[in-house]
Amino acid sequence: MVLCRYEHITQYYETDQMGIIHHSNYIRWMEEARVDLMRQAGISMVDIEKLGILIPVLSVSCEYKSMTRFGDTVIIDMRLAEYNGIKMFIEYQIYDKQTGKLRALGSSSHCFLSRDGKLISIKKNYPDIDRIFEELKHIQLKD
Amino acid sequence: MVLCRYEHITQYYETDQMGIIHHSNYIRWMEEARVDLMRQAGISMVDIEKLGILIPVLSVSCEYKSMTRFGDTVIIDMRLAEYNGIKMFIEYQIYDKQTGKLRALGSSSHCFLSRDGKLISIKKNYPDIDRIFEELKHIQLKD
Amino acid sequence: MVLCRYEHITQYYETDQMGIIHHSNYIRWMEEARVDLMRQAGISMVDIEKLGILIPVLSVSCEYKSMTRFGDTVIIDMRLAEYNGIKMFIEYQIYDKQTGKLRALGSSSHCFLSRDGKLISIKKNYPDIDRIFEELKHIQLKD
Amino acid sequence: MVLCRYEHITQYYETDQMGIIHHSNYIRWMEEARVDLMRQAGISMVDIEKLGILIPVLSVSCEYKSMTRFGDTVIIDMRLAEYNGIKMFIEYQIYDKQTGKLRALGSSSHCFLSRDGKLISIKKNYPDIDRIFEELKHIQLKD
Repeated sequence: MVLCRYEHITQYYETDQMGIIHHSNYIRWMEEARVDLMRQAGISMVDIEKLGILIPVLSVSCEYKSMTRFGDTVIIDMRLAEYNGIKMFIEYQIYDKQTGKLRALGSSSHCFLSRDGKLISIKKNYPDIDRIFEELKHIQLKD
Repeated sequence: MVLCRYEHITQYYETDQMGIIHHSNYIRWMEEARVDLMRQAGISMVDIEKLGILIPVLSVSCEYKSMTRFGDTVIIDMRLAEYNGIKMFIEYQIYDKQTGKLRALGSSSHCFLSRDGKLISIKKNYPDIDRIFEELKHIQLKD
Repeated sequence: MVLCRYEHITQYYETDQMGIIHHSNYIRWMEEARVDLMRQAGISMVDIEKLGILIPVLSVSCEYKSMTRFGDTVIIDMRLAEYNGIKMFIEYQIYDKQTGKLRALGSSSHCFLSRDGKLISIKKNYPDIDRIFEELKHIQLKD
Repeated sequence: MVLCRYEHITQYYETDQMGIIHHSNYIRWMEEARVDLMRQAGISMVDIEKLGILIPVLSVSCEYKSMTRFGDTVIIDMRLAEYNGIKMFIEYQIYDKQTGKLRALGSSSHCFLSRDGKLISIKKNYPDIDRIFEELKHIQLKD
């Protein structure tokens, strides 16, 4: 499966008084990329929630490698590193579009919940969605 | 009814690269003050939503009078200028706690909706809540 | 001058527990559109700030006409309604990309400041930038 | 050194359409707590930046243990786990004020930079501030 890289144009409201993009925004960009690439692959978060499936975040991490500034466009590549039908672990590379310079390395892990808070096995209950997640392990990204 | 003034301590993540608090945060502070003063008066948004009542924002405005900086504490006074059981119009004064200097004048208007998007008359359907809103027109604020 | 309409894809982190996009984000989208259309016209905020010019917000307003939901793409059209070299007043129309339905009407007013907080006349001191602002009064927007 | 626990009252604008507080806010709460406890100890970020010292974030992590909802008050305890004059590593415990239930475990690491981006040794150049950071390793927190 070949998907388009996710790009984010930095916004003025994302800056802080250090003159750089505030670090909390990178966590939001990882969500942007995750939602977009899943949608490209055929798993729309809008449809997922209509099925009654929530995908909460169990953990996040981000290592900041260099500073992003207002006006920069960043690319957020994601890799579904682990998925077993019940949980998943995603890795992100954030880098500057123009120079290719690495900005940050991130990760997030997730489970699948019903509206009433019970763990869901995607593998058992939603084989069609499970198949797409399995394919997401082997995506190629293009510009 | 005497209520406590609402205070907000400005946060680093609220700054922008102009070195001031980004203007969009004032809109959020108005919500903070509105929620807090209503709660003090006896109308908790948590309870309101449990009753199936949503209070969406129909309009907001803000005039910025002077700049707020990281480290400042601001006070947000609110006044329920109009309420008729179906809609309400609220005015806000935002000023620096230490100097009393005016930072901004704001306003917001709201209606009351059911979960399925129908207009609700608080006056007709929730007389106890209606009484509190009527009292909110005549609050005094203390430090 | 013909410029491209500004589009914003709504994000999960922009939603609130009413199940809609939180109203404070519209204020940020107006900034996104303003920065993008000015940049298309030849006035990059990055370059403007390198010249030592700040463009603070003097006021904002927004009337919410219908609800925006996660997954929607909105278009934010802007019109430079007034500009006299010292101040400007901008109007915004926010509408759903797919249906064309109006989501909100907004406005913002701005002045021009030096880094040390003095009012700047763009007309007097930056005639090249002044010329572009004059042209911005007469833009056409295309998809 | 005995410092007051940092409390955060959750805000409506921090919720998302899952009906919980969006995970990105926890990263901001860690900053709130860090800034507040450092200020209580005698290191105000406002003063630090006036000295020309920036304290950027090198990494963050957060493990979400249970969901925080609008209306909850959370306490964010922090512990300066490592500090050597050049870098520091901070750990956070976020828990519900009312029930004491753990909401999240977090961490952040930081260095010290001059305005022109050079690494600063606090130990060498700011012995008074260094002393306070050393004391921050051994704080007690009280309600």
